[in-house]
Amino acid sequence: ADPLALAEARAYQDRLTKPQGSLGVLEEVAVRLAGAAGASPPPTPAPAALAIFAADHGVHARGVSPWPQEVTVQMVANFLAGGAVANAFAAQAGVPVTVVDVGVAADLPDAPGLVKRKIGYGTADLSRGPAMTADQAVRALEAGITVARDLVAAGARCLITGDMGIANTTASAALISAFAGRDAAEVTGRGTGVDDETYARKVDVVREALRTNGLHSASGEPVPPDGGEALRALAAVGGFEHAAIAGFVLGGAAARVPVILDGVIAGAAALVAAALDPAAPDHCVAGHRSSEPGHAVALTHLGLRPLVDLELRLGEGSGGLLAYPIVCAAVRVMHDVATFDSAGVTEKPV
Amino acid sequence: ADPLALAEARAYQDRLTKPQGSLGVLEEVAVRLAGAAGASPPPTPAPAALAIFAADHGVHARGVSPWPQEVTVQMVANFLAGGAVANAFAAQAGVPVTVVDVGVAADLPDAPGLVKRKIGYGTADLSRGPAMTADQAVRALEAGITVARDLVAAGARCLITGDMGIANTTASAALISAFAGRDAAEVTGRGTGVDDETYARKVDVVREALRTNGLHSASGEPVPPDGGEALRALAAVGGFEHAAIAGFVLGGAAARVPVILDGVIAGAAALVAAALDPAAPDHCVAGHRSSEPGHAVALTHLGLRPLVDLELRLGEGSGGLLAYPIVCAAVRVMHDVATFDSAGVTEKPV
Repeated sequence: ADPLALAEARAYQDRLTKPQGSLGVLEEVAVRLAGAAGASPPPTPAPAALAIFAADHGVHARGVSPWPQEVTVQMVANFLAGGAVANAFAAQAGVPVTVVDVGVAADLPDAPGLVKRKIGYGTADLSRGPAMTADQAVRALEAGITVARDLVAAGARCLITGDMGIANTTASAALISAFAGRDAAEVTGRGTGVDDETYARKVDVVREALRTNGLHSASGEPVPPDGGEALRALAAVGGFEHAAIAGFVLGGAAARVPVILDGVIAGAAALVAAALDPAAPDHCVAGHRSSEPGHAVALTHLGLRPLVDLELRLGEGSGGLLAYPIVCAAVRVMHDVATFDSAGVTEKPV
Repeated sequence: ADPLALAEARAYQDRLTKPQGSLGVLEEVAVRLAGAAGASPPPTPAPAALAIFAADHGVHARGVSPWPQEVTVQMVANFLAGGAVANAFAAQAGVPVTVVDVGVAADLPDAPGLVKRKIGYGTADLSRGPAMTADQAVRALEAGITVARDLVAAGARCLITGDMGIANTTASAALISAFAGRDAAEVTGRGTGVDDETYARKVDVVREALRTNGLHSASGEPVPPDGGEALRALAAVGGFEHAAIAGFVLGGAAARVPVILDGVIAGAAALVAAALDPAAPDHCVAGHRSSEPGHAVALTHLGLRPLVDLELRLGEGSGGLLAYPIVCAAVRVMHDVATFDSAGVTEKPV
């Protein structure tokens, strides 16, 4: 982040016609985006674009989700037909939706709004060995970078992450366990709704994934990876959509465009992005905090504070889309609001 | 609330293409609005209208705020010129702003967007006796009802409360202390920023106001008023804008239009409205939770859960405006999202 832009933005916030600090977290959002953009006030984050990265997961065979795998491809069709919650929230926020197939376990017909970057027909089972080859992980990362670059080239000034992939909270928990160095039980949640028996199995599967893939230290604690290890850990326990979203974050950061992270899948992916580029989180805004315990762990690790906290556990970009108008409002304050001097308002005596 | 519409809305939420309950608090918002409107899905809450009720307070003379009283009228001018945070947030949300003078301590020139319903040039000092006469309190209530009715007649399908009045967190604390039956120390906050000495004085002033106005029981606990007592308590320790916002809530409820409450001033006013009409909170959505401790007390008393929780302490309607797109998104889900049947998505096995 640009220290001069950060300092300018902080000082300017205090000249605006409002009590100092009275916009709470929104002031910090605007200041952070100024630092990330290297300009105060930061650029208006509009128009925005949502990219929903869809993929399937070999670990689904372990019974970690009550939903059949076919729901991934069915929901992709629902997104493309405009019938999902993400479409409703995107319409509300005025944000176009792009769906990116990076690994759905079925061939998809061409459709407007669908970008085909399929790396494979689902990952391998992460609990039995690496989910992806190193080459696949790199290609999925590149797909995300490319989508970000293309959306920015088409005019987007804010990127919002979305995901779809039955069983992808299992891969998210494994990534967070590895990258944040926390036990599986601390970062595994009930996803879109699993019973106690399935939950216990899910925790076991996540722990097994780390051990099988050598991401477990001798002391029994996960090893926090960084640098080159990040790519190996990503390939070992990630999903194609996690890799692509990590690339999407890197692509947004490279273009100095803010990236609003959705839920736990994006949080896990952002940990990967941060390990590959420690400056990447400067360009991220945590859209919300989901019900998944791993999400809070990931956000704390990233140093990000979520804007929306309404017990969502849907994914698709839903939380990021709800946060988008709040991010816009935070930035708009720095463009539109009068200063004490310009408005002739008496300042509070010091 | 209409029990049939509530039940229909709950059942319909579970048919939509999302895991049951995965939209968390938003599902409950949509269901509540269906119950309030007596229709499932509930009507789209658009367009919305923000009304900022502005007034001054005799208790300002007690030194409860570091800001000079003239800031109220200066900020009214700032709202009318479009230079305040409320204007920026309203522009972001596409909401027109109406400013209502119900008691600013200065004569205001006519201006587009200004509604003149002045009841007095500020209230009397609530710590020395009643802030308003009973007649003034009724007229201020009526002003709020009229503004709500006029905005709905002009097409508004959602009302958002706003306020401006230097020292109005003191009156809010006194109202919440009286209506929620809590000690002054539990419900008094630092407003837009007071030092320790001023804070201690503010707590004393609130306690004194309750005692002076006979709102203190023999045991030393405030008496929770209801029915006819509500009007007396409002007149005793409220502000003109509190009375008007209480009326605004009643007017919205009467028109079956949702009212998004802003911060602690609206929370205090909604307690008054709820005492006058126990069904009024059914039509209210708590836009946010401010930093003021009394606000959380008021919301708990009203049974409302805030949507935004970002440490705002500005007022003006800022928190309500941030919540408005979230409310719209919650309702839009019920209009736009496909069902499992219609989209051909496999349901989770029971």
